[in-house]
Amino acid sequence: MTSDRLTRLLRPRSLALVGGKAAEEAVRQCRALGFAGPIWPVNPKRSEMAGLPCFPDMASLPEAPDAVFVAAPAPATIALAAELQGTGGAICYAADFAESGEEGRERQAALLEAAQGVPLIGPNCYGMLNLFDRVALWPDQHGCLPIEHGPHGQRGVAIVSQSGNLALNLTMQTRGLPIGYVISVGNCADVTPADLIEALIADERVSAIGLHLEGLGSVARFSEACLAARKAGIPLVALKTGASAKGAALTMSHTSSLAGADALTNALFARYGVARAHDPATFLETLKLLHVAGPLRGRRITSASCSGGEASLTADLAEAAGLETPDFPAATQATLEEVLGPRVHVANPLDYHTYIWGDLAATTACFSAMLGADFEASLLILDFPRTDRCSAADWDVTLAAYRAACRAPAAPGTVRIVVSSLSETMPETVAAALLAEGILPAAGLPEALRAIAAAASIGEAWANPAPDPLPELPGTIHGEPASWDEVRSKAVLAAAGVPIARGKVLTLAELEDPATQLPAPFPLVLKAVGADLAHKTEVGGVALNLSGRDALLAAAKGMSRLSDTFLIEEMVGGAVAELIVGVGRDPQFGLFLTLGAGGIFVELLRQTEQILLPASHADIEAALARLPLHKVLTGYRGKPGCDMSALVNAIAVIAGWAMAHADRLEEMDVNPLLALTTGAVAVDALIRIREPQA
Amino acid sequence: MTSDRLTRLLRPRSLALVGGKAAEEAVRQCRALGFAGPIWPVNPKRSEMAGLPCFPDMASLPEAPDAVFVAAPAPATIALAAELQGTGGAICYAADFAESGEEGRERQAALLEAAQGVPLIGPNCYGMLNLFDRVALWPDQHGCLPIEHGPHGQRGVAIVSQSGNLALNLTMQTRGLPIGYVISVGNCADVTPADLIEALIADERVSAIGLHLEGLGSVARFSEACLAARKAGIPLVALKTGASAKGAALTMSHTSSLAGADALTNALFARYGVARAHDPATFLETLKLLHVAGPLRGRRITSASCSGGEASLTADLAEAAGLETPDFPAATQATLEEVLGPRVHVANPLDYHTYIWGDLAATTACFSAMLGADFEASLLILDFPRTDRCSAADWDVTLAAYRAACRAPAAPGTVRIVVSSLSETMPETVAAALLAEGILPAAGLPEALRAIAAAASIGEAWANPAPDPLPELPGTIHGEPASWDEVRSKAVLAAAGVPIARGKVLTLAELEDPATQLPAPFPLVLKAVGADLAHKTEVGGVALNLSGRDALLAAAKGMSRLSDTFLIEEMVGGAVAELIVGVGRDPQFGLFLTLGAGGIFVELLRQTEQILLPASHADIEAALARLPLHKVLTGYRGKPGCDMSALVNAIAVIAGWAMAHADRLEEMDVNPLLALTTGAVAVDALIRIREPQA
Repeated sequence: MTSDRLTRLLRPRSLALVGGKAAEEAVRQCRALGFAGPIWPVNPKRSEMAGLPCFPDMASLPEAPDAVFVAAPAPATIALAAELQGTGGAICYAADFAESGEEGRERQAALLEAAQGVPLIGPNCYGMLNLFDRVALWPDQHGCLPIEHGPHGQRGVAIVSQSGNLALNLTMQTRGLPIGYVISVGNCADVTPADLIEALIADERVSAIGLHLEGLGSVARFSEACLAARKAGIPLVALKTGASAKGAALTMSHTSSLAGADALTNALFARYGVARAHDPATFLETLKLLHVAGPLRGRRITSASCSGGEASLTADLAEAAGLETPDFPAATQATLEEVLGPRVHVANPLDYHTYIWGDLAATTACFSAMLGADFEASLLILDFPRTDRCSAADWDVTLAAYRAACRAPAAPGTVRIVVSSLSETMPETVAAALLAEGILPAAGLPEALRAIAAAASIGEAWANPAPDPLPELPGTIHGEPASWDEVRSKAVLAAAGVPIARGKVLTLAELEDPATQLPAPFPLVLKAVGADLAHKTEVGGVALNLSGRDALLAAAKGMSRLSDTFLIEEMVGGAVAELIVGVGRDPQFGLFLTLGAGGIFVELLRQTEQILLPASHADIEAALARLPLHKVLTGYRGKPGCDMSALVNAIAVIAGWAMAHADRLEEMDVNPLLALTTGAVAVDALIRIREPQA
Repeated sequence: MTSDRLTRLLRPRSLALVGGKAAEEAVRQCRALGFAGPIWPVNPKRSEMAGLPCFPDMASLPEAPDAVFVAAPAPATIALAAELQGTGGAICYAADFAESGEEGRERQAALLEAAQGVPLIGPNCYGMLNLFDRVALWPDQHGCLPIEHGPHGQRGVAIVSQSGNLALNLTMQTRGLPIGYVISVGNCADVTPADLIEALIADERVSAIGLHLEGLGSVARFSEACLAARKAGIPLVALKTGASAKGAALTMSHTSSLAGADALTNALFARYGVARAHDPATFLETLKLLHVAGPLRGRRITSASCSGGEASLTADLAEAAGLETPDFPAATQATLEEVLGPRVHVANPLDYHTYIWGDLAATTACFSAMLGADFEASLLILDFPRTDRCSAADWDVTLAAYRAACRAPAAPGTVRIVVSSLSETMPETVAAALLAEGILPAAGLPEALRAIAAAASIGEAWANPAPDPLPELPGTIHGEPASWDEVRSKAVLAAAGVPIARGKVLTLAELEDPATQLPAPFPLVLKAVGADLAHKTEVGGVALNLSGRDALLAAAKGMSRLSDTFLIEEMVGGAVAELIVGVGRDPQFGLFLTLGAGGIFVELLRQTEQILLPASHADIEAALARLPLHKVLTGYRGKPGCDMSALVNAIAVIAGWAMAHADRLEEMDVNPLLALTTGAVAVDALIRIREPQA
């Protein structure tokens, strides 16, 4: 889709609102916001709606409206969709479509068919607020105010939500977040979050986009939209639910969208630079930070509080959030020591004590010194008294000092933050005043620190070369399932270029013949061969380290209950580490690669990394670097490291083979892949495919 | 101390306030709260203070006051301490005592000396609020109201804080938490948090106690106080900072208290049933839950929301908090299906949809069914609109339905919770109304779920038999340091009853003599012996699996550069797993035990568990069960498990030996301790001691 397909619908200059009570409330909300263009209620049974004259049908309207809010039951919504030609699109409020079962899915298909390409948001959605243009196609009250033109122009964040109720609740925030758009997407029959990302980044008033996602829709489309947002410099943060097994199941029953495996969601977000929040408060605080500062280039923060309690708390919470609190540069340290005097121990996080509390010049000097140092975020921790019982006069001096310090030139790329340790101790009026000066008012210390880390995660992703979008990979494949045994699996991989242990398949009779050529010098390995021997180790189908023909033959005879065919292989010793390289298929993501410690540790430690396919050498290297096993791979406790280039290459060849067989590969395991000091060798492999049906 | 030592100070009927501006503000705050008894300002230079007549000195007071607030500089505070005899005690506001260096430590000693046993809170503290008795020995405004007598009596929580500023900020909460006491303890020269726990549990109005801790003081005293609280049925929650290395360093510079190693703090809290919060909001929400419900007997929760977005979010956040969301019992499931109709998929967490929104009878039936089922917590998720821009009329029906459902008999032990997903969408007035009916009003879904888990952690600890208090163990010991080599270390442990591999120490010459008796049949192990060979494996000082005399002799000759003495041992094969058993000394906790996967995995995986000493067999079993390695110990993938009883016993003997040598043991490592199918064997050990000086 082209990004201007949604322009009329999202930024309408005329509105039609079709239906009864819900449409009437939307009319009322549009008027309350002060929408400047015409508002046309449509209802055949009414002459007036919320103080405006009512039209009997779409055909009677003076002209085709830019946006239509359809709040009629499902069948009437389908009928109305046929009358949308010429309009900019519609928002369909009605439920009872795809989320409610097979008949609903049929109704949803009929709805799309009837609209003939006119953009539809929903159905089963709560509507749209556009606070820039004072539009409330929204059947309820909400907590937002119009976004006015401010000193930095007319700017605000956009929220795109799969849950209408969550979207409604987010509008009730009292954190000073300037919300420009709230779009509830419901079933995403036509317009998806990816489409909205592409449309919203074209609105120069949008500073950042927040997504509440249950499923991801097409991950390929989503990756394209993320890349477009990156190109436009608009950061994304997602509150993606379905992280738990239970949450994923609930999500499926809720909007019939498919919650992908959570590790794969994280891999997707990391590759395409989408910050992740896990709760609504952190989501809002991250949006606010991104609105003020955009992505951050690192994780180094400093904080000032007049108490050591908050300094220590900040150090703990920063570490938990994945942030760093490095020492001050020497010059900053010296200035602070001079300003604060000998009774104050200068450290980061800083407890500046109360000796200078209320002293405008001294506190300004203190904060100026901190803001002059090179950190990604500089926090002043300040909890305001409750205004109904207390006075905040003392606090105003501290705030004035910080604002004065902020007006001086600061280190580039430092976001300035005034944060309260509790969310309720940052008054909304203070937040608005700070925001107008480009200072981030953060409500709640843990949420603020998580927001900083989230913004840094975007900066880290954007610092990498832009990745390609993901291809469309099928989530499920059909056909006759087949398991290839070790011999066939390894032959296939060897042909693709994966290094394999030297081996030869022999029968018991051949083994008994002393003239039979063996594949390598002793010691050798003997394995029983058979497609149903996936767990041959557990059933005694593997004998290692056989030192001569007698031992070999004895072992083969011992396994004759399992198979009469054997794989004889060289015994590869001296491995630096054993890895598992797996490829799996996820309904949402298609194929993905899993790397981890191999052998017994696969299941015991559950230390694995997931990579979306296709995977570059850099993706594989980065995933290996995140494994605890990486210490072993690079040489642990004086032991030699592995041949990293050969290891990465072997994994890349396996991943490439999987991608080349994406239409038929169900799953594969190379376990172990031995990382050697020179080279890498796959010593066992198993491939499960589905043979395409004739 | 006896618990009534602090009664007069904490529940005073007469007050003296000594000093200038800070004392004056405290007078004003006491009068604003409506303190009923006499308030006596003391200042030689003033005749009046905040509207009350001023006394020139303590001697002029009509009688000895129950509580004295001393807000004078440090030297004057010391002088005044000598005049406290006959009073109930004093709160010392002044700083510049032990927190400020060596001279300050001397002043603090002089202060204690001058008081001659009269109780002192502080110095370097912010004071005390007692909202039951309308006392504000507090030099500043605060956000609290007096606790009135309510339907359940006069009840509230107590907050004891090492940070005065944090205590002040906590009073500004708008979450409906009834705060009965706020006590800032500062340097704890005399009265410690442990003393206050014992005093506060004697006040029948106190429902729960929250502690902000930087250090723990004496862990032995702390453990006694925790046991007293458990006996009184008063739950404790701690916001303990210093979890990060940086936080610990800041804490030390801040109040000269020592932040113990964080894993040991967790071990202490788990043993004595102290819930832990990591941020102020979770701390307050946990206190509020404990106020309403006390400790919980489990972690099973259910939630109801009118949107699937919140249901899925709850499932995710509950799992992250360590809670369970099991399916409904069949009867509840059936009732809910009947009440909610075929369009609603009934599952826990429950999305009850909006079909019954505003229908009092139907929503009451829905909530009643949920509250009738056996869960530890039953949540209604409800975000209220902002009152300045919206109406909450619709919400009132839902709330009324929940309150009606709560009035019916519910499953015993279920805490009923109305929770908002954002902290700001639970109005304080709603919170107060709910609390009056015994319903927990929770502000913020993640904080509420963490609070439930925290309350469950107390219930879990209290379900165990009450442990003994911890003994006083020295945090540092003196004397000449000495390392005992493997031979001596193992001999000592063997004598104590730790099973040791059979072995013999021989010189190279003895080894060369074919007549020398070896300790066991081949294969054997050869190790170089020497006190400086702590890392003998890395320097080639260990040869395993030697199959005969020739190999033994060759290995010994190869090691002759390291030592001319060797330990020859049986080769113990077939271990189920290798463990490390370590004993370390912490400045705060004294001796502690570390258990983990041994060998190369000690440092690689960093999967260890810490246990405070002394440790019971049950403590050791519980720690082993928390190790990922436990799967191997109990038989992994069809392999045999270890002799658990022998393993636990060997560890207990090591721990017992350590306790018996607590005055001289610096640290010890038994690594590996082999867990065998029958028995357990220590195959290497190293002990570092300090020899007591003559």
